[in-house]
Amino acid sequence: MELIADTNSTFIAEKLSGEGIEVVFSTNVGDDVSRIAEAFDAAKSRADVIIATGGLGPTSDDLTKKAIVKVFKRKLVFHEKILKEIEKSFEKRGQLMPKINQNQALLPQGAKPLANRWGVAPGIFIEEENTLFFALPGVPQEMKWMLESEVLPILRSDKPKTFVIHRKLRTTGIPESAIYEKIEGLIDPKGDVKIAFLPSYGGVDIRLTVTPKQAVEGEAKIEELEKKIREILGTYIYGTDDQVLEEVVGDLLSERGKTIAVAESCTGGLIGAKFTNISGSSKYFERGVVTYSNQAKMELLKVPPETIEKYGAVSEEVALLMAEGVRKLAKTDYGLSATGIAGPTGGTPEKPVGLVHIGFAHENDSFAQKFQFAEDRLTNRERAAQAALNMVRLFLIK
Amino acid sequence: MELIADTNSTFIAEKLSGEGIEVVFSTNVGDDVSRIAEAFDAAKSRADVIIATGGLGPTSDDLTKKAIVKVFKRKLVFHEKILKEIEKSFEKRGQLMPKINQNQALLPQGAKPLANRWGVAPGIFIEEENTLFFALPGVPQEMKWMLESEVLPILRSDKPKTFVIHRKLRTTGIPESAIYEKIEGLIDPKGDVKIAFLPSYGGVDIRLTVTPKQAVEGEAKIEELEKKIREILGTYIYGTDDQVLEEVVGDLLSERGKTIAVAESCTGGLIGAKFTNISGSSKYFERGVVTYSNQAKMELLKVPPETIEKYGAVSEEVALLMAEGVRKLAKTDYGLSATGIAGPTGGTPEKPVGLVHIGFAHENDSFAQKFQFAEDRLTNRERAAQAALNMVRLFLIK
Repeated sequence: MELIADTNSTFIAEKLSGEGIEVVFSTNVGDDVSRIAEAFDAAKSRADVIIATGGLGPTSDDLTKKAIVKVFKRKLVFHEKILKEIEKSFEKRGQLMPKINQNQALLPQGAKPLANRWGVAPGIFIEEENTLFFALPGVPQEMKWMLESEVLPILRSDKPKTFVIHRKLRTTGIPESAIYEKIEGLIDPKGDVKIAFLPSYGGVDIRLTVTPKQAVEGEAKIEELEKKIREILGTYIYGTDDQVLEEVVGDLLSERGKTIAVAESCTGGLIGAKFTNISGSSKYFERGVVTYSNQAKMELLKVPPETIEKYGAVSEEVALLMAEGVRKLAKTDYGLSATGIAGPTGGTPEKPVGLVHIGFAHENDSFAQKFQFAEDRLTNRERAAQAALNMVRLFLIK
Repeated sequence: MELIADTNSTFIAEKLSGEGIEVVFSTNVGDDVSRIAEAFDAAKSRADVIIATGGLGPTSDDLTKKAIVKVFKRKLVFHEKILKEIEKSFEKRGQLMPKINQNQALLPQGAKPLANRWGVAPGIFIEEENTLFFALPGVPQEMKWMLESEVLPILRSDKPKTFVIHRKLRTTGIPESAIYEKIEGLIDPKGDVKIAFLPSYGGVDIRLTVTPKQAVEGEAKIEELEKKIREILGTYIYGTDDQVLEEVVGDLLSERGKTIAVAESCTGGLIGAKFTNISGSSKYFERGVVTYSNQAKMELLKVPPETIEKYGAVSEEVALLMAEGVRKLAKTDYGLSATGIAGPTGGTPEKPVGLVHIGFAHENDSFAQKFQFAEDRLTNRERAAQAALNMVRLFLIK
């Protein structure tokens, strides 16, 4: 077993499932040619399609090709054209190609190279009578593009036998068990549409899955259930499928032609980073200030020292003044703020670790909300950033 | 196969490997009792220790316990004491326990509950003649704590048969193939110490592994090789094992009693968020400004409009002025800045997507460095933040 995070197989399973292809097995093996070859052999005997990731790099611990040679009994052949492309890819980065990367121009005989939009190593496609074999790079960004642009089109030419339709309803601000209690009446384990709850730091996703005879029929069934769930959960649902909260909030701000500025303490820049994850966010995100010190809160946001002294930097009063202060500073429509105790140190009985005040200021008024998280430092910060974005969303849709 | 990112098995394998226990197999199965039970059955036949994650939640799609009942032939028993603890855990968050969470107080007969520092559901430990079985929660934070605090102490009482010693040397600012060419002479596939290259967005980790008869002997062999690699790679290596760059930079600033402030454009708060990921960073991180608009650059950092007009917001000149500006604004020892084109839009032939200028200002001078990344928006931003932190590190150690 290789000690590399296996988010790749998750992504692949999700994409294949969208094509109606079920993943029957996934295995992780270590940097050892014979163990990799064994895994390929076992996969050949139980599946029609094999997708391997990783081990296409130039260094000697990248062993996928050696295992392919063993299992598929094919020699490695040098491809001049691939070498040229690899050299070009280094040029684009203003670098000279190290000699060792020549290895990546070797492909098993009869294999088809798969284009790599984001990296150097081409993927490998081998077609045998009962097996479609794909080897993709291990770097997620490279793997994802290659799967979607190169592998799926090949698989689509093999007509799938069943449809599997998914819909993800994304919620935030409500725990898994509370969702469950609210929609328990809609859950029918023997029904056509299966419901799964996928909790993460940002909220709980509700995944609906149906395997119908006809796609149209499946869509209708999912839509019917989605409508019922939406009636119950209302604004707890912020988006569907791959939508992220910062995108939803960004779209709302864009549609309304509004601008926002952010003043952060405990989140240290995370809210700004989330807003600006979205391409085009400069339309509505004017600026952020990370007022980590009290001095910065006073200077940039005009929070009076007396307020900090009286209520503490982590208080509703300071959150409100921070939101108002950054709105004035940036001359935006809205100001958003977060101040809290991320932990692990700094907590007191009155203000325990995980306490966060989020403030929001608009044309006519400002308001704040108090949150009590109970996680580690990084998760408390993530949750605070998500809660801040959600406050903006709830304000904009109300 | 469940569509959830499987970073858990990676973490577990890494920790077990540190205890000299080799993971012989890892499997992902879906939300289906009989498939989970099959996987447990198969695991019982091939391993002495089984660790399952996920499926301990209160909702009906959490099926691990049902599979345990099947495979281990034990009834579920209600534990009053566990229920009390679950209720307390909700209280701590200021919430009432939903009824559905009562399920989590059910344990297979004879099983020992494992404490859950960060969540509600207790883990499960079952000891049979030839098998140690553990079921842990799927939420990574809960799983990690439970593995380290509850599972490993139990496993340690079983004396491991072999030692496996790892050392990770973490590099940044140099590509995998360039590292390979530099240290190629030290790589001996038949040698005692194995070398693996683990590239990620932040840099390339070089992992050294040895399996000696005696721990002392293994440590000596790793240290010998580490010394040779350090002689060649020098300051490309920023840390070892689990150290992150922001921690290394934070320690350097602390030791020297220096403070820093950050002015970000393309990174949108990411550099500030990284600095403040570290508990205690308020000692050296004074403030950050996310000057996303040109207006913000002019107002807060006193970048003259003429400079922006003449050279563009993404330029060495503006990066320098941003670093100097934020240093003056915050009255810190150092100022750090980033301005660039994260993409996917906004690139031109002269200033392509991925171009980033990092600026650094100190008591006597300021300097800037130009980077050309070639990735997607999120990765370009991550790389820029990492490069900025690294510039501070290189300045402080020189």
